[in-house]
Amino acid sequence: MTSTSPSALKGLMIILDGLGDRPVEQFGGQTPLEAAATPNLDDLVERGMSGMVRPIRPWVPVGTQVGTALLMGLAAADIPLLNRGPVEAAGAGLKLRDGDIALRCNFATLRENGVAFEIDDRRAGRIDSGTSELAAAVDGMELFGGVVAGFRASTQHRAVLRLSGTGLSADITDTDPGSGNEAWGIQPCRPLDPGDAVAQRTAALVNEFVQRAHEVLDAHPVNDARRSRGQLPANGLLTRGAGMVMTPRNFVNQLGLSATLITGEGTVDGLGRLFGFSVINKPEFTGAQVTDIEAKIEAAQAALEDSDLVFVHFKGTDVAAHDLNPAAKRDFIEKVDAFMPTLVDDDVVLALTGDHTTDSTTGRHTGDAVPGVILASGSRLDQVSRFAESTCRAGALGSLTSTSFLMAMLDHMHVLHNYRGYEDEFIQ
Amino acid sequence: MTSTSPSALKGLMIILDGLGDRPVEQFGGQTPLEAAATPNLDDLVERGMSGMVRPIRPWVPVGTQVGTALLMGLAAADIPLLNRGPVEAAGAGLKLRDGDIALRCNFATLRENGVAFEIDDRRAGRIDSGTSELAAAVDGMELFGGVVAGFRASTQHRAVLRLSGTGLSADITDTDPGSGNEAWGIQPCRPLDPGDAVAQRTAALVNEFVQRAHEVLDAHPVNDARRSRGQLPANGLLTRGAGMVMTPRNFVNQLGLSATLITGEGTVDGLGRLFGFSVINKPEFTGAQVTDIEAKIEAAQAALEDSDLVFVHFKGTDVAAHDLNPAAKRDFIEKVDAFMPTLVDDDVVLALTGDHTTDSTTGRHTGDAVPGVILASGSRLDQVSRFAESTCRAGALGSLTSTSFLMAMLDHMHVLHNYRGYEDEFIQ
Repeated sequence: MTSTSPSALKGLMIILDGLGDRPVEQFGGQTPLEAAATPNLDDLVERGMSGMVRPIRPWVPVGTQVGTALLMGLAAADIPLLNRGPVEAAGAGLKLRDGDIALRCNFATLRENGVAFEIDDRRAGRIDSGTSELAAAVDGMELFGGVVAGFRASTQHRAVLRLSGTGLSADITDTDPGSGNEAWGIQPCRPLDPGDAVAQRTAALVNEFVQRAHEVLDAHPVNDARRSRGQLPANGLLTRGAGMVMTPRNFVNQLGLSATLITGEGTVDGLGRLFGFSVINKPEFTGAQVTDIEAKIEAAQAALEDSDLVFVHFKGTDVAAHDLNPAAKRDFIEKVDAFMPTLVDDDVVLALTGDHTTDSTTGRHTGDAVPGVILASGSRLDQVSRFAESTCRAGALGSLTSTSFLMAMLDHMHVLHNYRGYEDEFIQ
Repeated sequence: MTSTSPSALKGLMIILDGLGDRPVEQFGGQTPLEAAATPNLDDLVERGMSGMVRPIRPWVPVGTQVGTALLMGLAAADIPLLNRGPVEAAGAGLKLRDGDIALRCNFATLRENGVAFEIDDRRAGRIDSGTSELAAAVDGMELFGGVVAGFRASTQHRAVLRLSGTGLSADITDTDPGSGNEAWGIQPCRPLDPGDAVAQRTAALVNEFVQRAHEVLDAHPVNDARRSRGQLPANGLLTRGAGMVMTPRNFVNQLGLSATLITGEGTVDGLGRLFGFSVINKPEFTGAQVTDIEAKIEAAQAALEDSDLVFVHFKGTDVAAHDLNPAAKRDFIEKVDAFMPTLVDDDVVLALTGDHTTDSTTGRHTGDAVPGVILASGSRLDQVSRFAESTCRAGALGSLTSTSFLMAMLDHMHVLHNYRGYEDEFIQ
């Protein structure tokens, strides 16, 4: 008698950004999740498996980009690729063709000293409006040799530069001296290898763009208005993280599954596009209101029709914690909890966790593990019946990395093969 | 509203060497820690987070050098560097300049057979006095080519040889055949690569030193006295672990923190110096008496004024276990326990664990995990209220490596950044 091969199930993972927390004084030492009334999440825990998710290394905090990327299948070995222009380009909707290079940029406040640029502020006073107009003013600039600069604003002071043409190389240095090194001023872009003629030419193109962009931006009406309001002008650009088109390895793709990502955040959106997922990002997804949650949940249910795996990303928990507002975090968790019953479906493996812990007392990302739950038909059970930091460590999932949490979900979707070795690239 | 950056806290880690144990018959199956009355450690566990520390790999025992080095931030990838002369040299206060090489040595009992040296005892009857006089007799010996031998006694039968001059290489073989291979006799020092002329010359220098040191030591009054007392003479030297000046990577240094180490043991002292920590090692630190404990605790409190992180190392637990004396181990734990209340401070993250388990029934290091506790303001809590092998595995820290135990401490000191990738060199 041979074993039967069960048909594959679909999967839905809900990522509550910065879900984990530490004890909060105003909650009598409970965390926001512990203080929240979450009857529906508790029911998932009661009927499913819970555990504690530590993103990459025990007690090492991670940023949202790394944390969500791992939950969505990024190979841990490819984490270093994330710190590159092509990720920012994907998030900003700037398409890279073979041979193009992309660089991450900051709008900054610069001052010419006759020889070079001094940096008055690496983030142009943390500018958060008017950057689209500024970006449009330098987008499409024609540089020497027929190379064209594409330029898009991203979130806050961030932006992305694409150089399109022939004979380009990503083996060039950053013009951004980095946080804490503002006093060094803008660094000239140079080839990493002085003998690399292609990189030498690319560096010269970046330097031309930086110089000409300053002239355009410094005279732009948006900056005139900023100066008249006493704000620092966003009259220059810092560049870093040059990279060419790339595809970080992703376990979901490795398995040949189709995936959809639902998010309102640019960085996470860019990750999804880089992974080749369908990305649904609507203007109404940006807030922490009930209507936003409902819209995302509806989009997720629709996406499950066509996709094997759907990821839904909520930012409200993390925003509240960074704002040192544990009550808002608790309330957001309760709002999400209310939608859980509509998602329970025997044919769908339902998982919920966070990408990292954000301490709402200090506003810091910390290395504490994050509660996670998986509801899947046929799974083992455990004795846990409350979704909280203090309870889930006794659950059947135990303590596991974000990648292993995804693996546990995929295993219950019946889409994993027996170990072949390539899994090692993905799990660390 | 943006999040505030909480100010960094200081940290104090107490390392009880060989703290963990196995059930002891005379304690009715309890371990020495379980048999000890530790009201103050229990109070730390009640108010903080506990867990089980498995030094590097589950169930793989470690030596004190590796165990303490990992707790103090050594990159796991650099563990192999520790088995080298330069660590012993640092502990013995022999400074290495660029180009010098250092070798670990044993005082041994040798016998010339006309052609080579036979080894009667690899440790010269476990000699533990008179080695400083013997070392002084060969220290400063001028070898061929202007190379000078520096020589210092270390703990018990151990010593260190430094060769200073030009044209030296550490790519040479050991003259020590290793434990269990005494019958092979002393091995001639050879270059690892027969075609390496610099290593060939260095090997010849080591061979000259071994030959001439035997002549000096064999005729030394210390050995005349030993022979007259029926003891084996320390009339020769075995060499191993040649190495040049080096700096093992350390996570505490990577973070730019200042650290102080308080210890009475030469090996651990050497580690601290190699890491660039301030090391406080006084003659009164060597015993297991209450006065020694008090002196170390006072030194720790003083060091916290100037250092970000202070490590205090106690050897009494391990010595008692190696002596198959669980009662002495229990008593030493109780003595340390009494000082805990003076160390509790809201502005200091307090951690206590051991570098490994030493089984006081067999005297062996074993792979069992070691209880650990961290008391930090704002941390998560757990339900554990007793500091013991049988209880701490239910704690909030779970099961974690020594490096991760340090990370958890650093995370609560608010000094970690979000994951950048370099952490991988440190955590395995």
